[in-house]
Amino acid sequence: MPIKFTITHQETKSRARLGEIKTEHGSFQTPVFMPVGTQASVKALGSDDLKKCGVGILLGNTYHLYLRPGHQLVKEMGGLHRFMNWNGPILTDSGGYQVFSLKELNKLTEEGVTFQSHIDGSRHLLSPEKSMEIQEALGADIIMAFDEPVPYPASHSDTEESGKLTTRWAKRCKEAHKDTSQALFGIVQGGMFPDLRERSAKEIVELGFPGYAIGGLSVGEPKELMAEMIDATVPHLPPEAPRYLMGVGYPEDILRSVLQGVDMFDCVVPTRNARNGTLFTSTGKVMIKNAAHKNDPKPLDSNCSCYTCSNFTRAYLRHLFTAGEILSYRLNTIHNVHFYMNLMAEIRKAIRENRLKEYYCEFRKATGNPCCG
Amino acid sequence: MPIKFTITHQETKSRARLGEIKTEHGSFQTPVFMPVGTQASVKALGSDDLKKCGVGILLGNTYHLYLRPGHQLVKEMGGLHRFMNWNGPILTDSGGYQVFSLKELNKLTEEGVTFQSHIDGSRHLLSPEKSMEIQEALGADIIMAFDEPVPYPASHSDTEESGKLTTRWAKRCKEAHKDTSQALFGIVQGGMFPDLRERSAKEIVELGFPGYAIGGLSVGEPKELMAEMIDATVPHLPPEAPRYLMGVGYPEDILRSVLQGVDMFDCVVPTRNARNGTLFTSTGKVMIKNAAHKNDPKPLDSNCSCYTCSNFTRAYLRHLFTAGEILSYRLNTIHNVHFYMNLMAEIRKAIRENRLKEYYCEFRKATGNPCCG
Repeated sequence: MPIKFTITHQETKSRARLGEIKTEHGSFQTPVFMPVGTQASVKALGSDDLKKCGVGILLGNTYHLYLRPGHQLVKEMGGLHRFMNWNGPILTDSGGYQVFSLKELNKLTEEGVTFQSHIDGSRHLLSPEKSMEIQEALGADIIMAFDEPVPYPASHSDTEESGKLTTRWAKRCKEAHKDTSQALFGIVQGGMFPDLRERSAKEIVELGFPGYAIGGLSVGEPKELMAEMIDATVPHLPPEAPRYLMGVGYPEDILRSVLQGVDMFDCVVPTRNARNGTLFTSTGKVMIKNAAHKNDPKPLDSNCSCYTCSNFTRAYLRHLFTAGEILSYRLNTIHNVHFYMNLMAEIRKAIRENRLKEYYCEFRKATGNPCCG
Repeated sequence: MPIKFTITHQETKSRARLGEIKTEHGSFQTPVFMPVGTQASVKALGSDDLKKCGVGILLGNTYHLYLRPGHQLVKEMGGLHRFMNWNGPILTDSGGYQVFSLKELNKLTEEGVTFQSHIDGSRHLLSPEKSMEIQEALGADIIMAFDEPVPYPASHSDTEESGKLTTRWAKRCKEAHKDTSQALFGIVQGGMFPDLRERSAKEIVELGFPGYAIGGLSVGEPKELMAEMIDATVPHLPPEAPRYLMGVGYPEDILRSVLQGVDMFDCVVPTRNARNGTLFTSTGKVMIKNAAHKNDPKPLDSNCSCYTCSNFTRAYLRHLFTAGEILSYRLNTIHNVHFYMNLMAEIRKAIRENRLKEYYCEFRKATGNPCCG
């Protein structure tokens, strides 16, 4: 088996569970958050920084790596792990999400999607087979099936057709996937319709994968709808396989989804926000450019043990951001990634103590966004 | 004494000497190269990176720090060392060089220079007294007298007037400087005229400082002329005080100047070149964007032990640079700064062995720029 998932504790009061995933590049605890290393780099961080932040597994983007530097080059350089000097576990996405978000530039057929490169305008076909070929060359520990995410909003009939295509493509991915050292995860679609979520889940589970992703969420829908769709999907997934909610998200979204039984997450939120100067702290978000921080000698978050908070003041971080210093990106990103890693550790601790709902309410209260109940 | 300079070895075959400077923030060996931390940050590096590169002393820019974030703010935050989390020695320049390079924007009087901020156009006066006030607030271990560098080329009479003004200003700096924990260095001017270099040196030495800088060089003049001016200055400086050649330079310039008796250097060359993708190696300069490096699995410099060379390939460095990744700036800068620190260590070793001239020739030969003799 390319990966081994062990559930070490199931919470009694929610679907949340604690687990461990073993890969050929080491193990990580779940629930887990994967920082995004789009172009073989988590923007502004070196692999030394990632390790110090406690990162357990990274996500790489197939679309970007295929276009630049090219999957064959990465393979020639010993695979993505060696190329970017990250010897821990890696997951790559299928490339589908990026291709479909370039709406004007792509053409969909049964075969796959033809698209134009955002770098040089060259034309390419991405298909289930091609996605497998690229992801095998990149050599991640976990790879994803090539699916068709539906836009939001979409009609029931369009979503239904898209779900059927996703299932046919998932089958082709499974057939095309040869590298037995990699775990291929299936992706459930079904848009915002509980019946289609259920149908998609059943079809994908029927094909049989070592892990399942919930795709097509966090695409602009209300939070309640996202939660409803997770609830419409999770009961149809085998409890013994890891569940991965793609592209989510903010701390509150992660906490709520863990309560619903999700084990894995990824999102650019912590890294992109860091570069924009929006920093997550134990008492809520901080916009570092605000004048209030100008002569503040306190650390960004006095409850944080990251390199940034251990060594620098808010005044210095504001100065670096205002002056456009490159170091600003690194220090801010170190903090946000560390914050997310610490959040996941707190979540795991709360699950172990069967008190994740209480922790969720405490977290929302502490960060200035209390729940009602 | 705010600093203590000890000469530990004088080369027999040249003016090169080995020394140590003790400050309240620790000691460093000379000859030394100071990376430039313009705005309280050596661009792209954290203080953790600087330590790992073996940096002994940093340079901070008074002009930039005065305008942003402001010297009073830095003082309020505990001084520049604490503000930027660098607990080793720091030298600040006087602000004069930056003010005078904004040619259109300044007005010179006996009092000082009135200039407009490059950030918001506000008007400011920089004078010997003001420069001392700012540098005392910043709290560096070594601070510099406020001088008037002459442009290149300049006439003998303009250079003579400028030298006289520099001496009057040096006297005012000495009178205004109150913080006995800081060492105030004098600066010798005199343009490209040996007689004026000698006169300036004698006048500045007459005032008495714990260290002397050679200013107004590396401003576009031929290398031979720079060397001639150093030779016209050094014999008039007291051998027991450190000699600092400001704004120099390339490895060859540093090597040649050490042979002429210079102890301290600073320049943006290693850091700025790093950001432009020009990297110094033991076999010469490498332009990392060149297609030749596209699938090169070798480290940038196989003779280098820096973080970058120990962990990443040329292919990866080229990819990061081509993709515009922020990490590119950090990895490139770590290497170039480490290269300079290693160069200085090699220089000190060669001096200890009385073979710096041989090392100079070996270095030029290895880097593809052999000397004639």
